[in-house]
Amino acid sequence: MTLRHFLNTNDWSRAELDALLQQAARFKQSRLGQQMAGKSIALLFFNPSMRTRTSFELGAFQLGGHAVVLEPGKAAWPIEFAPRAVMEGDTEEHIAEVARVLSRYVDLIGVRAFPKFQQWEVDREDLVLKAFAQYSTVPVINLETITHPCQELAHILALQEHFGTLDKKKYVLTWTYHPKPLNTAVANSALLIATRFGMDVTLLCPTPDYVLDSRYMELAKANAAESGGSLTISHDVETAYTGADVVYAKSWGALPFFGRWEQEKPIREAHRHFMVDEAKMALTNNGVFSHCLPLRRNVKATDGVMDSPACIAIDEAENRLHVQKAVMAALLAQR
Amino acid sequence: MTLRHFLNTNDWSRAELDALLQQAARFKQSRLGQQMAGKSIALLFFNPSMRTRTSFELGAFQLGGHAVVLEPGKAAWPIEFAPRAVMEGDTEEHIAEVARVLSRYVDLIGVRAFPKFQQWEVDREDLVLKAFAQYSTVPVINLETITHPCQELAHILALQEHFGTLDKKKYVLTWTYHPKPLNTAVANSALLIATRFGMDVTLLCPTPDYVLDSRYMELAKANAAESGGSLTISHDVETAYTGADVVYAKSWGALPFFGRWEQEKPIREAHRHFMVDEAKMALTNNGVFSHCLPLRRNVKATDGVMDSPACIAIDEAENRLHVQKAVMAALLAQR
Amino acid sequence: MTLRHFLNTNDWSRAELDALLQQAARFKQSRLGQQMAGKSIALLFFNPSMRTRTSFELGAFQLGGHAVVLEPGKAAWPIEFAPRAVMEGDTEEHIAEVARVLSRYVDLIGVRAFPKFQQWEVDREDLVLKAFAQYSTVPVINLETITHPCQELAHILALQEHFGTLDKKKYVLTWTYHPKPLNTAVANSALLIATRFGMDVTLLCPTPDYVLDSRYMELAKANAAESGGSLTISHDVETAYTGADVVYAKSWGALPFFGRWEQEKPIREAHRHFMVDEAKMALTNNGVFSHCLPLRRNVKATDGVMDSPACIAIDEAENRLHVQKAVMAALLAQR
Repeated sequence: MTLRHFLNTNDWSRAELDALLQQAARFKQSRLGQQMAGKSIALLFFNPSMRTRTSFELGAFQLGGHAVVLEPGKAAWPIEFAPRAVMEGDTEEHIAEVARVLSRYVDLIGVRAFPKFQQWEVDREDLVLKAFAQYSTVPVINLETITHPCQELAHILALQEHFGTLDKKKYVLTWTYHPKPLNTAVANSALLIATRFGMDVTLLCPTPDYVLDSRYMELAKANAAESGGSLTISHDVETAYTGADVVYAKSWGALPFFGRWEQEKPIREAHRHFMVDEAKMALTNNGVFSHCLPLRRNVKATDGVMDSPACIAIDEAENRLHVQKAVMAALLAQR
Repeated sequence: MTLRHFLNTNDWSRAELDALLQQAARFKQSRLGQQMAGKSIALLFFNPSMRTRTSFELGAFQLGGHAVVLEPGKAAWPIEFAPRAVMEGDTEEHIAEVARVLSRYVDLIGVRAFPKFQQWEVDREDLVLKAFAQYSTVPVINLETITHPCQELAHILALQEHFGTLDKKKYVLTWTYHPKPLNTAVANSALLIATRFGMDVTLLCPTPDYVLDSRYMELAKANAAESGGSLTISHDVETAYTGADVVYAKSWGALPFFGRWEQEKPIREAHRHFMVDEAKMALTNNGVFSHCLPLRRNVKATDGVMDSPACIAIDEAENRLHVQKAVMAALLAQR
Repeated sequence: MTLRHFLNTNDWSRAELDALLQQAARFKQSRLGQQMAGKSIALLFFNPSMRTRTSFELGAFQLGGHAVVLEPGKAAWPIEFAPRAVMEGDTEEHIAEVARVLSRYVDLIGVRAFPKFQQWEVDREDLVLKAFAQYSTVPVINLETITHPCQELAHILALQEHFGTLDKKKYVLTWTYHPKPLNTAVANSALLIATRFGMDVTLLCPTPDYVLDSRYMELAKANAAESGGSLTISHDVETAYTGADVVYAKSWGALPFFGRWEQEKPIREAHRHFMVDEAKMALTNNGVFSHCLPLRRNVKATDGVMDSPACIAIDEAENRLHVQKAVMAALLAQR
């Protein structure tokens, strides 16, 4: 039997995702369990974290297990990922050893590794995550690399709590301004999961340069075709918001400018008006608003939107705890 | 019912403080319990910690719970505290979201946030702690901001272990030299709690500039009036030490020089002789010495004092563990 | 009864080491236990760690206990080790207080403190570890200073798993190139433990300058005399490898150049060919290869060696978990 990882939701069937969401809902009702009794997970953070670290660490504890938090390059040794590397640079040990040793210690490995933001052609290969999956002999969980599947499940659970079934709901993923050219991971993930659950999805972004990587656009189209949903691209704020049931916001850097961010900056600056505000939300079908957090208030969304009853971002964040426990329990149960 | 936090001892009645101290004494006899079984606390450190972090983490474990340690701005995202901020600077998320999300994950939130040492008028508002208390839907514990109430309880418990009742004991809080202009938190706290427990308190400091903030001087006076103790200011070392039952040392920067520390430095340097030494201790009524730690030996107190049987600083440090377990158990029991 | 620490294997009798190894083998068969139920260990890292931190943290958890990870000078206060220091510099608290306070909180203290690499005459005194052992009132465990006794036990257990008895096995400790002048700790430890277990040990290094400190050379000779093994120095690669049962590799800086590393660099560079490769391993008696990790691939050993069945470095790393649980259980049982 091949080892099952949790790297991307598209590797899991809709029935399997539904089962994870149902288990998550049960964990939300009753927090404590023994699904990880005596078991452990290593959480490797190559980038900062608040929600992910807290929710995984607590999730392991609540199921009787233990999470070890490691920060390679800071409190732990820097890691080499290139095969056949002659390691004369800064890296002190190879992923082959790191993953094999950790697999002897723990039962699960979680990895957060953001892009390097130099070359998208390199970053889009998701090499760090793939290397962990290749060398580990225990299941690997994606804690956000170029997608963020745990966030996807938390997002869908929050929407299901609000709407019940999501079929044919009008879903808008809107780009928003941020002073830095952020990761596209959550945007990619939003397209993947919203189309998976049968919603009519609009990707709203300033210009065609902000359309997401073709891999995710194609996967989202295929998901929509299978689920009965749809995928549309829009650069018109008013059209996109009108009648929306869900507005999900995310900032990201335009891929054609990857690594040449100074040239993209004026374009981003020119679209600060994409900020989610009360006027835009008034165009929706009494829609809900969410975001993966962290969120810069009054840059990505106004205080008014964030503090309104329509904002379900806190519910989504809470759901991270519940869905991740479901993922850990499912991965451990396969063995 | 309003949510009860543990922000300052003056928010708690003397009977409530006595109950916490009695519970702490019981935990000192019998370390393990189930008062936090399956529950958790987030410990947010904006500044370094050794005792606080260790004692809270172990306290949670010993009561069946789990502590998550977060360092905003280092391993976690930097936080914005200003209401209505347009977040275009370095902060990535607002306390409104941080506190609300953490409140969904954990049962208690502890916060360490030292002053910024630029403007006392700003720092004295204790905005970080207040913001957590405002937005959290779970109890918040002060892990040292501009007061240090957990240290207060540990200090009093150590004194009670030595003296039994503390009424009318002569208590000296002495300023000592330190190369840096330190936080007044423990000094403020010492005045608050010593007056609360009926002691005759002398604040010994080099000049009137080293008297503490009027808020704490007034609260201490009121505490003394209620408890039958007293509060006196002295700049004379010999008078202050003579007949003392308790000598508690702390270094702090003079408030009138706040943010202009270079101008204060020569004044501080001129008072290095405030160091607690054997000669000064010989003036006391066979008194005990304590300090909150960390302590620079032979700068704040001599090796002779630190290594003498009169030094109860290690007992006080140990008591952090016990009193904090009592605080956590009491806050959880209210729900 | 004097307090027993785990500072060096030479402080423990062969019978005691055998008992630790047998307990470790039992823990490898059955991971969970209650030997640390409600108990705790503080892990102080003055230097980075991946395996040590993970294996101790999980070991404590699997035995019902809890590990607190502290990083003095980073998230915790910098510590002074000199007796009678007038602490006007960067250190904020003295080991006397740190060790005494931690001893009130936890049941065991682990310390990692690498040399400073300025003066070997200072570093060879192992002052940080000795200071913890002196002031602590609970057992102290060496997590690698100028020796690495936990690694020794893990190494021997892996060899015993492969060979059964180790008497008269031919054991080669080979120096290898590394761009930095690394710590001699694991090399010292390899000599100590290999001679202890009756092996015929060859120290293979480029020149007499790379021979290890006389303290460890003398101890190893005495160990060999007692165990029936032997100790030889060689600078000839072919002779040393021929017929070897075990090849253990480690990089270290030459002690005569301590603190003058730029002068040593060309000598090190001239011996890059000490890298362990398939041709050298072909000279052995179907020998096994191991290393303490982290290891720079294709600098210290080739991919071919690392990925061959002869490489037992991952087993050795796994064994850290098991032997350390045995050490913790033994130290706690003495009380």
